[in-house]
Amino acid sequence: MQFINVKDVAAHCNKQINLRGWVRNYRKASSQLRFVIFRDGTGEIQMVADKKRMGEDRFDKVKLLNIEASLWVMGIPRAHQIRKNEYELELLDLQVIGEAVDYPIAKKEHGPDFLLSHRHLWLRSRRQYAALKIRHTVYYAICDYLNRNGFYRFDSPILTPNASEGTTTLFQVPYFDQGYAYLSQSGQLYLEAGIMSLGRVYDFGPVFRAEKSKTRKHLTEFWMMDAEAAFVEHDENMQIQEELIRYVIRTVIKNNGRELEILERDIETLQKSDAPFQRLTYHEAINLLRAKGIAISYTDDFGANEEEIITAGSAVPFFVERWPKEIKSFYMKRDPLNPKLALGADLIAPEGFGEIIGGSQREDDYDLLLERITSEGYSIEDYQWFLDLRKYGSVPHSGFGIGLERLVQWMTGIRHIREVIPFPRMINRIYP
Amino acid sequence: MQFINVKDVAAHCNKQINLRGWVRNYRKASSQLRFVIFRDGTGEIQMVADKKRMGEDRFDKVKLLNIEASLWVMGIPRAHQIRKNEYELELLDLQVIGEAVDYPIAKKEHGPDFLLSHRHLWLRSRRQYAALKIRHTVYYAICDYLNRNGFYRFDSPILTPNASEGTTTLFQVPYFDQGYAYLSQSGQLYLEAGIMSLGRVYDFGPVFRAEKSKTRKHLTEFWMMDAEAAFVEHDENMQIQEELIRYVIRTVIKNNGRELEILERDIETLQKSDAPFQRLTYHEAINLLRAKGIAISYTDDFGANEEEIITAGSAVPFFVERWPKEIKSFYMKRDPLNPKLALGADLIAPEGFGEIIGGSQREDDYDLLLERITSEGYSIEDYQWFLDLRKYGSVPHSGFGIGLERLVQWMTGIRHIREVIPFPRMINRIYP
Repeated sequence: MQFINVKDVAAHCNKQINLRGWVRNYRKASSQLRFVIFRDGTGEIQMVADKKRMGEDRFDKVKLLNIEASLWVMGIPRAHQIRKNEYELELLDLQVIGEAVDYPIAKKEHGPDFLLSHRHLWLRSRRQYAALKIRHTVYYAICDYLNRNGFYRFDSPILTPNASEGTTTLFQVPYFDQGYAYLSQSGQLYLEAGIMSLGRVYDFGPVFRAEKSKTRKHLTEFWMMDAEAAFVEHDENMQIQEELIRYVIRTVIKNNGRELEILERDIETLQKSDAPFQRLTYHEAINLLRAKGIAISYTDDFGANEEEIITAGSAVPFFVERWPKEIKSFYMKRDPLNPKLALGADLIAPEGFGEIIGGSQREDDYDLLLERITSEGYSIEDYQWFLDLRKYGSVPHSGFGIGLERLVQWMTGIRHIREVIPFPRMINRIYP
Repeated sequence: MQFINVKDVAAHCNKQINLRGWVRNYRKASSQLRFVIFRDGTGEIQMVADKKRMGEDRFDKVKLLNIEASLWVMGIPRAHQIRKNEYELELLDLQVIGEAVDYPIAKKEHGPDFLLSHRHLWLRSRRQYAALKIRHTVYYAICDYLNRNGFYRFDSPILTPNASEGTTTLFQVPYFDQGYAYLSQSGQLYLEAGIMSLGRVYDFGPVFRAEKSKTRKHLTEFWMMDAEAAFVEHDENMQIQEELIRYVIRTVIKNNGRELEILERDIETLQKSDAPFQRLTYHEAINLLRAKGIAISYTDDFGANEEEIITAGSAVPFFVERWPKEIKSFYMKRDPLNPKLALGADLIAPEGFGEIIGGSQREDDYDLLLERITSEGYSIEDYQWFLDLRKYGSVPHSGFGIGLERLVQWMTGIRHIREVIPFPRMINRIYP
């Protein structure tokens, strides 16, 4: 028996086909007529069960259906009478493959804790389904852009040695007789070794933060893409990021119209983001915030509130660049025009979705990097390999990191980060 | 100033160009003539420095070059006089960007421990560079095949709750006040939840084994692709695997001719692997081993030796299918023709590269799965969410897992697994 996917029914209009999938929902229209929403992972279709056409025996099977039962169905796709490019399935016969008695996620509202404890089932809900399809698109749009621009995948290790930066937000793992290993928070330093071989590299894997935050923006395990490129300096670094993000926006709009609709995402607003990004220096950003009445000094970092004010009313993201060196990492290169500043840039998404990229040109001078490692109180021994990269054929280079979930939040318009990853891990959540 | 990549020199033949990269090596041909092998991550080119043509000052700079110094160079690509499609660069001028005094990895032989301690530099070596480029190709060939066949990326969690399967090979991580989390060994169980929403899913991320093995086949951290598909049964599962692996072989041969050459990989042998795979039942495999004089009983698992004997003389991989249920996992479906067997199949690569895929049809019946969980002594509570998948709309389904590094070993012909991952982690190795 040949089976068709819901996404392909148009090609089989008015022909008898077989499908396999699940009952999303059903509705009794009259004693003679029922509607069943059927889904199979590739799409959804409304099945029309007409007692007169099916016969009583087969219609009785429809009457017994439960939400989330799995089915084989036989029917004929018909063009929808009103809605263009939509199809209904005239149901001829069906058979239940797997029952679903008292499916726990009913139509009523459930609290987040209940839903998270049933994440293995909640995933089937329409919004979760749509969010994960868009996550897939975002992931590969990032990879496609990088692959076509000379970057090679270079998987950084997750288990990393003693990080002298302090271990308060690091997960610690006993590692044989080597003491402890720590779960990676970013593969960047390793990528800097990779570019010396491959020119341009990136990783894209899970990273971990043992932060005790309980906000809707925090996960303890999330996915991060870090990219690094030899001979790329600060301005070109931002240019690459802008092109990449605009490519992601275009790809999501092109591939996921149906899913954006399910999520009631404002596509027009998203479309407007695919335009030249804004650039502000940190100094300009502070001035802007002060002009809007925010009390902030010239060495403060930004919180969610500041990020929202900066991007307010803008459809495109903002780069905020050239930060005070004190609030940025030791490996960032100093601004040659002002050594008090670091050549770093954060990219802030519009609509309140916050920082989605952090990037910078990296310090490529051995002595300056050594001085910074020392003045931060880090151990030279721990960083000797990283210093070596400045000792043997150092080159100017830059890189940036994209938090996948933050970017998917922006694309989908979903406010809580827990809904854009299959099994979210939070401070109080490790199951299922 | 515009810069060209080495891979693009052909398009600039006989025109003056600028390049940036590193000195791979140099050779003095005479007092007037030097050859410098120059690399930039996109490829390698031999530069010809002729004192008469360059002038003494510029030639003197060539004489001072060190291995792995980074350079800007100006020159003119010329077609190689003998070798077709090869180019040399007639050197006009150069400038050192970053020195490299006494680069530690010289031409002499180094022991594996020295090389692993200098992995951040060893990566630049020609074989390591080639292996990582092929790793990139293999990774995306797998993703491409899956994406074009209806699979969605579905990132399984790395931090997983108490696994009652026993914790001897699990890395254990203190997790806030939730007790311990464990680093994932496979995302399969989570993918089984994913297919009920998306139909076909896969993950592709790091997995962890706290095994005390020190062989050339073991890493404590490696990359695994797990795929899972609703409505796919045992035979179709093998068919998908075969198509996928043959697609990977073709893609590597197509994209990485130069790298396979660097690695002296026998391409003809690899090419012959892109042909219909062999299938043996476990029973047949045992008979074959016995016929070759191996003492093995009908419930033994295979080791590297058995795998080599089974595939000896074959250019194509072997599926060994329908294993005694006792030596396979609890979640595998029983063979309906013989309930003592599990519908699992291992795929064994030729040329002694061992198992590269393990897969099976999964048990989809609630009661049978419950019985197996109980008889293994596992806790029902831990697996309740997994059992739920058989309670609400269960469907026949199958899946398989590919060890990325094993597959890259086969493609590259590299015998030691530590050379096919950027920063290998082993029992005694966590640095750099």
